[in-house]
Amino acid sequence: MRRALDEDLGRAGDITSAATIPAGTRAHAKLVARIAGTIAGLECARRAFHQLDASIDFRARHRDGDQVAAGSVLAEVEGAALPMLAAERVALNFVGHLSGIATLTAAYVARIAGTKAKVVCTRKTVPTLRALAKYAVRCGGGMNHRFGLDDAVLIKDNHIAVAGGVKPALERARTAVGHLVKIEIEAATLEQVREVIAAGKADAVLLDNMDVDSLSQAVKLVGGKLVTEASGGVSLETIAAVAATGVDFISVGALTHSAPGLDVALDVEM
Amino acid sequence: MRRALDEDLGRAGDITSAATIPAGTRAHAKLVARIAGTIAGLECARRAFHQLDASIDFRARHRDGDQVAAGSVLAEVEGAALPMLAAERVALNFVGHLSGIATLTAAYVARIAGTKAKVVCTRKTVPTLRALAKYAVRCGGGMNHRFGLDDAVLIKDNHIAVAGGVKPALERARTAVGHLVKIEIEAATLEQVREVIAAGKADAVLLDNMDVDSLSQAVKLVGGKLVTEASGGVSLETIAAVAATGVDFISVGALTHSAPGLDVALDVEM
Amino acid sequence: MRRALDEDLGRAGDITSAATIPAGTRAHAKLVARIAGTIAGLECARRAFHQLDASIDFRARHRDGDQVAAGSVLAEVEGAALPMLAAERVALNFVGHLSGIATLTAAYVARIAGTKAKVVCTRKTVPTLRALAKYAVRCGGGMNHRFGLDDAVLIKDNHIAVAGGVKPALERARTAVGHLVKIEIEAATLEQVREVIAAGKADAVLLDNMDVDSLSQAVKLVGGKLVTEASGGVSLETIAAVAATGVDFISVGALTHSAPGLDVALDVEM
Amino acid sequence: MRRALDEDLGRAGDITSAATIPAGTRAHAKLVARIAGTIAGLECARRAFHQLDASIDFRARHRDGDQVAAGSVLAEVEGAALPMLAAERVALNFVGHLSGIATLTAAYVARIAGTKAKVVCTRKTVPTLRALAKYAVRCGGGMNHRFGLDDAVLIKDNHIAVAGGVKPALERARTAVGHLVKIEIEAATLEQVREVIAAGKADAVLLDNMDVDSLSQAVKLVGGKLVTEASGGVSLETIAAVAATGVDFISVGALTHSAPGLDVALDVEM
Amino acid sequence: MRRALDEDLGRAGDITSAATIPAGTRAHAKLVARIAGTIAGLECARRAFHQLDASIDFRARHRDGDQVAAGSVLAEVEGAALPMLAAERVALNFVGHLSGIATLTAAYVARIAGTKAKVVCTRKTVPTLRALAKYAVRCGGGMNHRFGLDDAVLIKDNHIAVAGGVKPALERARTAVGHLVKIEIEAATLEQVREVIAAGKADAVLLDNMDVDSLSQAVKLVGGKLVTEASGGVSLETIAAVAATGVDFISVGALTHSAPGLDVALDVEM
Amino acid sequence: MRRALDEDLGRAGDITSAATIPAGTRAHAKLVARIAGTIAGLECARRAFHQLDASIDFRARHRDGDQVAAGSVLAEVEGAALPMLAAERVALNFVGHLSGIATLTAAYVARIAGTKAKVVCTRKTVPTLRALAKYAVRCGGGMNHRFGLDDAVLIKDNHIAVAGGVKPALERARTAVGHLVKIEIEAATLEQVREVIAAGKADAVLLDNMDVDSLSQAVKLVGGKLVTEASGGVSLETIAAVAATGVDFISVGALTHSAPGLDVALDVEM
Repeated sequence: MRRALDEDLGRAGDITSAATIPAGTRAHAKLVARIAGTIAGLECARRAFHQLDASIDFRARHRDGDQVAAGSVLAEVEGAALPMLAAERVALNFVGHLSGIATLTAAYVARIAGTKAKVVCTRKTVPTLRALAKYAVRCGGGMNHRFGLDDAVLIKDNHIAVAGGVKPALERARTAVGHLVKIEIEAATLEQVREVIAAGKADAVLLDNMDVDSLSQAVKLVGGKLVTEASGGVSLETIAAVAATGVDFISVGALTHSAPGLDVALDVEM
Repeated sequence: MRRALDEDLGRAGDITSAATIPAGTRAHAKLVARIAGTIAGLECARRAFHQLDASIDFRARHRDGDQVAAGSVLAEVEGAALPMLAAERVALNFVGHLSGIATLTAAYVARIAGTKAKVVCTRKTVPTLRALAKYAVRCGGGMNHRFGLDDAVLIKDNHIAVAGGVKPALERARTAVGHLVKIEIEAATLEQVREVIAAGKADAVLLDNMDVDSLSQAVKLVGGKLVTEASGGVSLETIAAVAATGVDFISVGALTHSAPGLDVALDVEM
Repeated sequence: MRRALDEDLGRAGDITSAATIPAGTRAHAKLVARIAGTIAGLECARRAFHQLDASIDFRARHRDGDQVAAGSVLAEVEGAALPMLAAERVALNFVGHLSGIATLTAAYVARIAGTKAKVVCTRKTVPTLRALAKYAVRCGGGMNHRFGLDDAVLIKDNHIAVAGGVKPALERARTAVGHLVKIEIEAATLEQVREVIAAGKADAVLLDNMDVDSLSQAVKLVGGKLVTEASGGVSLETIAAVAATGVDFISVGALTHSAPGLDVALDVEM
Repeated sequence: MRRALDEDLGRAGDITSAATIPAGTRAHAKLVARIAGTIAGLECARRAFHQLDASIDFRARHRDGDQVAAGSVLAEVEGAALPMLAAERVALNFVGHLSGIATLTAAYVARIAGTKAKVVCTRKTVPTLRALAKYAVRCGGGMNHRFGLDDAVLIKDNHIAVAGGVKPALERARTAVGHLVKIEIEAATLEQVREVIAAGKADAVLLDNMDVDSLSQAVKLVGGKLVTEASGGVSLETIAAVAATGVDFISVGALTHSAPGLDVALDVEM
Repeated sequence: MRRALDEDLGRAGDITSAATIPAGTRAHAKLVARIAGTIAGLECARRAFHQLDASIDFRARHRDGDQVAAGSVLAEVEGAALPMLAAERVALNFVGHLSGIATLTAAYVARIAGTKAKVVCTRKTVPTLRALAKYAVRCGGGMNHRFGLDDAVLIKDNHIAVAGGVKPALERARTAVGHLVKIEIEAATLEQVREVIAAGKADAVLLDNMDVDSLSQAVKLVGGKLVTEASGGVSLETIAAVAATGVDFISVGALTHSAPGLDVALDVEM
Repeated sequence: MRRALDEDLGRAGDITSAATIPAGTRAHAKLVARIAGTIAGLECARRAFHQLDASIDFRARHRDGDQVAAGSVLAEVEGAALPMLAAERVALNFVGHLSGIATLTAAYVARIAGTKAKVVCTRKTVPTLRALAKYAVRCGGGMNHRFGLDDAVLIKDNHIAVAGGVKPALERARTAVGHLVKIEIEAATLEQVREVIAAGKADAVLLDNMDVDSLSQAVKLVGGKLVTEASGGVSLETIAAVAATGVDFISVGALTHSAPGLDVALDVEM
């Protein structure tokens, strides 16, 4: 938060407001969603204002995760005008970016309502904002995949090739990591799915870029013995069909790398 | 960069590769654009790899700003496999995010080729990544607006209201800031444009949310005495008409808050 | 502020007071200017005390920018003795350093009272304290030049030489930077002043190391078409004559690189 | 160093040079002292350049501590023009500030040449630059007092008053700190000097604001049993008389809080 | 590493060596284990030296994880004497601390050789050094438990009580976390073990402070359906009996909170 | 403190409590010493809780330095359950680590009660926690040696050898450092002790690895003219005999590098 404010305030701060608005001026403002969407990041907005002036009164009118209509007031903000204006853009940039992610996630989630499948995000996030992005995915009704390279094992084709096959790769992983670390492994073909099942050390199998038919067969092969995840090229148009195959999880990179920002604004009265 | 890598590596690093790939393994990889676009961020990719292993050989095959076809090799990377894989996702996230911005900017720029208008970005950027986002806009052929609240004055409606009008707001600003700081002021109506011209202290006028007719008239009113900028709700569909009004600059928030990531990947051979 | 306190407290803190003053001791203190001057940095003093103990009561008796007589009480400080003494030197060092700058600036400003010229500072500041130094200049009645290399263009002789002349240098600069960035260019001779005027892209001209006669002619040549700035070797003795030439701004490096500290002290009663 | 460069480069870097100087341009430069003085900070200059480009060749032609004539070349710098110009001002600000301190120190030292007294600095330093300032004092031939509140005990009048006298203050200090920590105590009168000698736990006595006669008598009273330090209001005019009293050390706050910067410049050829 | 060096060098650095050893002096040194043990942290030692002087030649003669006899040379170090001595203590403190952990771990591991049980560490680590401590445990042949509160779920008695029982606690956890997060749950009685098995959502059960008989029965109850971990009060004397119960993992807090440092020294010749 | 919490909370925080404990849940907890010992670090515990939630009520029931029986309540903690549990492990790790040091120190101090000797620590501390470790030594009744390489001179065998003997080493040191810096020098033989006394510039002599007989003779030789410190291989078994030789200080590295953690726990009710 400090870095985000420093980035906007630079060395000399909000020189426009300093020149035009007297020091004691008070302001009352409404944080408004200009379009409909799912909200995330109100706490970031609060922190942006409070970092510059702890006495600003920030009253949230919605909670993160709420689906709101265009024009909804998300929060009311009252206090000294100068710090409020100085924090405005940073607060809006957080809410806009995170609500954009939540809104796109909610759209994917809505397409598969009624199935057992869950939408999950990936590590394809904007650098340095991953924890917030993953929080926004949860606000949108999605679930989180790994937070980084260190909190679970995900064995991909290269790892399998170098390790000498599915079985040795899984065995190496199992002996290397602690008992509270899960292991998932990629499979691109039904043959590989069979190898994974046979090797017996995995917790989950990532079905990579399979068509819907293959996914269905893979799910049947697995038969509930492993968690199944479909991955690769899933869009709003195709996700329902993917969910219908019976997979447990569907990962969608676009949630965090391509969500358009939600249009939010601060309507200020002084 | 350090923070981006820390975010992905966490406390224990790339536990999958550590378990499955022997320490001395070498890898050769190609950084590839899966779809066509304008490239930005290759230097970030290089730094991500070099931060983890300065001996990795990173040879760029394109330059930032190049428009490339789907399948183009952007860079070749050679060296130790473990640090290369540990840096892979961070490198791709930078290139994907920044090239997404450059690609969208280039699309806007292309729509107004042949006019004198320039596309500029705004302060609606993803928090903490503004300098890189603005760089990506330049890679896409756009120009930069303010980097923050401190490097130019931009007087908005609230400032005008509190200061008691266009004229006093401009006068206060002119006496408050140094001689190397430019002053731009918002005008939402032709009447306000006339006030700005009459006040005589501004360097530029931001024509806010005006329709194309009003823009044309405003440009005529200004008659080259001020720089003109059109702002508000400009899309790929409308930008050509806006440019045709004769404004000098057109600002587009979507460049930095809603650009979808460009699909880039690292094809690794070990 | 945290770094300044760490620098003085080191690893073990104020070992003298810890050894000689009981933990609950209260103190009342006066922050006093031992000599006359213009004050800057009282907010830094407050922060130094509050960083170590937020319950210390700091009541400013003057404001930054006030011209005070020797012996003036600048603030009264009341609270726990141990944190107050631990923060004392840091608080005084800030106020002494910044008030020194403000006092020297006020002396320069006083010499040109009644002219239209303004005193401005330069980038010749003590490393890492520039924003505070520039604030102190404003407290002394001066104005600020660039805060850094990135917030305005200042084309010097080397840039002109490499770019192939005044005209191409100005053209390159104009196309490279956004519409809210000002451009100033150095001219050492009247001939160069004429070139600058002819090239027509500059906002300001820096008249570098010219004698008073040349300055007068340069101001006449410019005729209000550009902002004029005199620079180089200006002293308290010469500034009035420089101002009389009609230049708009006079930059003085000594304001920030050679101002003697103002003698301030904390008179403590326990 | 990183902070000093960030402060000058801001978010967008050296936009003037970026616009006017082609990327591959080489430069050869001389770091020159425009006036005579004692040099300090050449290593800082080297680091400023190398932080931005490790391949810049920096050849010092003098060493810190050298007394040089006006016009002396302190170092030659060769390499890529863009990083060299971007680091120029920071490098000069360090050398100018530190050489100013060294030069003023050398002036004080010269006034007492031939006596046994040593000039020492104080904690009245520009915030966050103390270690460098103290280094510059050593370059000028002075010695260092405490670096902070934690590396030696210095008992002042307030400590004595609260502790209940010279003797209890010294006893408390001696039992509180380790055997490798020295203890100095202020004495403002000859009576207090006698108390300090009688108490027997101090390593040094600071003779505070005494006139020359009192200093002489105090030195006789001490008779070599303690280190003696004269402090308070010492100037270039008075230091010789103070040294003649036989004190061991003379502390001068002005060395670090009021030294004018030394005029240094970078003469660049491209 | 930078913080560890700063902590030892303080503001003025190694003043003893600076005073007594000429600048150009070279040194050859041996990093020696004074007593037998298992080594960890040689890379930290290398970094300590290289942080101060990248040209110091550090040749490891052993690898982390090696069990060495008293007097073994762990590394040879050659280069400039001043930076070598300045980094010496920090390098030794890292190697001594981490090798102490590795050595104690190896002792525990040795006691249960031949059983299927594994020794694992806990989160009871010295603050801010956890990742290194966990690495040292691996060097000693142990395995790692959670790195923090975020990389796996561990449901304790309080969580169970508030959630309303074992079954609801497990259900809540399973729906809250992603599919790559493991869930372990504490059980203090055989009855609780049965509840955990019945609830069916856990990956592992932590058998808390059970005696050896209860552990044996718990292992039988579980029958391989869950990973079993014994925890609480395990010592070098009791670990063999605990392992004989058939548990999969035995966690030992003492590995990281109570390991005596290994006595290592740097024998320097100049 | 922030780093210690970040280390434990990682990117996603306390996922177990978040899943199982409702947001508004309150908790009352007791910080308890499971075994007898000397306490240090309660303020660290308070800060750990307050860093995550400033409204948590932390009431210390003991003070640092208290010797407590097994089962003693050290503090009561009341407030929101989620931040309390999130900070629990970090708070305990600080108190356990520091109380372990205090407890071991107190054991050494108790062995030499009634002698004039003092127990002092060394620079053999766990990296980055030295100031806290030295504080814990004081809580246990010990005193502190140097905090780092910069706050006193300690001349060792290598320094003597390179400087050309005891006398030149002491002379160089005396002229290099300020008058508030103490000088200690190592002596391994009685002959060296005589040289140190003859050279006359030292404040203290470190009697390195001498047997008890040699120590007694060395103390006699010194005859109170210097502070004496015994160092090397001192254990709980041997310290009484060392103290009986009449040395002033006995340094014990084990205090800070090998103290087992004190078993402390947080008993929570919700």
